[in-house]
Amino acid sequence: MGRKLRNIRLDIEYEGTHYHGWQVQANAVSVSGTIEEALEQVLQHRARLLGSGRTDAGVHALGQVANFTTEREIPAENLQLALNRLLPRDIVIRRAADVPLEFHARRDAIERTYRYQFFVGSHPSALYRTLTLHIRRPLNVSAMRQAAGAFVGSHDFTSFRSRHCDAENPVRTVFSFDVLNDPPFVFLDVKANAFLRNQVRIMASTLLEVGLGRCPASDVPRILEAKNRDLAGPTLKPRGLLLVHVRYPGQDAIPMPRTPSSLA
Amino acid sequence: MGRKLRNIRLDIEYEGTHYHGWQVQANAVSVSGTIEEALEQVLQHRARLLGSGRTDAGVHALGQVANFTTEREIPAENLQLALNRLLPRDIVIRRAADVPLEFHARRDAIERTYRYQFFVGSHPSALYRTLTLHIRRPLNVSAMRQAAGAFVGSHDFTSFRSRHCDAENPVRTVFSFDVLNDPPFVFLDVKANAFLRNQVRIMASTLLEVGLGRCPASDVPRILEAKNRDLAGPTLKPRGLLLVHVRYPGQDAIPMPRTPSSLA
Repeated sequence: MGRKLRNIRLDIEYEGTHYHGWQVQANAVSVSGTIEEALEQVLQHRARLLGSGRTDAGVHALGQVANFTTEREIPAENLQLALNRLLPRDIVIRRAADVPLEFHARRDAIERTYRYQFFVGSHPSALYRTLTLHIRRPLNVSAMRQAAGAFVGSHDFTSFRSRHCDAENPVRTVFSFDVLNDPPFVFLDVKANAFLRNQVRIMASTLLEVGLGRCPASDVPRILEAKNRDLAGPTLKPRGLLLVHVRYPGQDAIPMPRTPSSLA
Repeated sequence: MGRKLRNIRLDIEYEGTHYHGWQVQANAVSVSGTIEEALEQVLQHRARLLGSGRTDAGVHALGQVANFTTEREIPAENLQLALNRLLPRDIVIRRAADVPLEFHARRDAIERTYRYQFFVGSHPSALYRTLTLHIRRPLNVSAMRQAAGAFVGSHDFTSFRSRHCDAENPVRTVFSFDVLNDPPFVFLDVKANAFLRNQVRIMASTLLEVGLGRCPASDVPRILEAKNRDLAGPTLKPRGLLLVHVRYPGQDAIPMPRTPSSLA
């Protein structure tokens, strides 16, 4: 049986609340481990799922991308159907497609988009409690917007990465960082070529300090320049954080997931 | 202790997934029963919570309104804080306020707004699975919009109410019925003075039949005129249905809950 090796790309949506993150870990339920188990049932062999990047425990995704190889001849659409039947309802395969053998979900990604969703008010939201982080006090959104501007461009983000981050090069390029005010919601939308470990969460907590008036917006460029993790805010809770989209060169296999313009 | 009787209005948000509806029932956990238990802990007496209307099992609310009476002197804001500390996270008191003794959450309501949220696609959504009803096939939204127009105005809604509905008068006035297309979402927004039992769910399922091409839009006025429950669609699943707002004469104590314009 001289079967051909195939490389299959999965576009994945998940609610991260009940998972210890994307990455397989010993003694913890991960998103990729859960999908790998379903894959094994369908393929009848273990497959290693390679994600575009790790998402932390509790972080959601609308458009995580991963790939794996197999020699099985099951059509991609049937694979998608079979996986969605096996997976728990908080993980959905939005698309499965054959891609060139050289496609690599992490190395080929040229842009990642993350969003933090804040719910601002004296009491948290019941309906959006897993989708938003509750912020008790009002935010100065224009100060946050000004501070966010300091992140845009290519910078050494040493001040904004976990001490446990093992990337050799701390330079990343932030393409845009928008702060949207849609009371009672505030959204932080950030696009970069890639992110260091905990970078989004540390940038967001620093902007939160600015929004709460505990840190002037003008401090942010200085914190960036200092390359000192002690100066930035703590790592913000993962609640309300979403990996929205991962982009690859050329035409997207799947367009950027639509965000509803008026989800109640 | 000649204490004064107070009438207190609560504005309530809840995710209905884990409740057997608003109304207290024997051997079932209801939203109002859960709040009444928390109220008893705070007030040290039983209080009967009177809602603007019943929501069915699984239906959510952004702005349910209810009232109860007490002679306790606890300030309304403290009552709100105490309730939110006691309540499970899927029920949140958005506001508590003293209102005139004659205020009656059901009788005084002049307008109710409901929304159905559909997620249209071959696979359901992971992130919005409790907030949306999954519709597998594409919808003809303009046909649905045309059909929805037939509901607007004062009509005998006998064809669109549960056989178990015990309202004496089957006439209700629908102020507006909008069908919004925001792919992959479709929203049905309906405002009326009041609704008969299951009316929103039966109107929505009939519009869904129209959207799926199983019933021409032009049939809907005829179904309405026939006053025959057999002719309308079945009662649609409650998933994705929300009581958005209840309006009272004069200035609203709490404005219509904002729906995010871009919740991911």
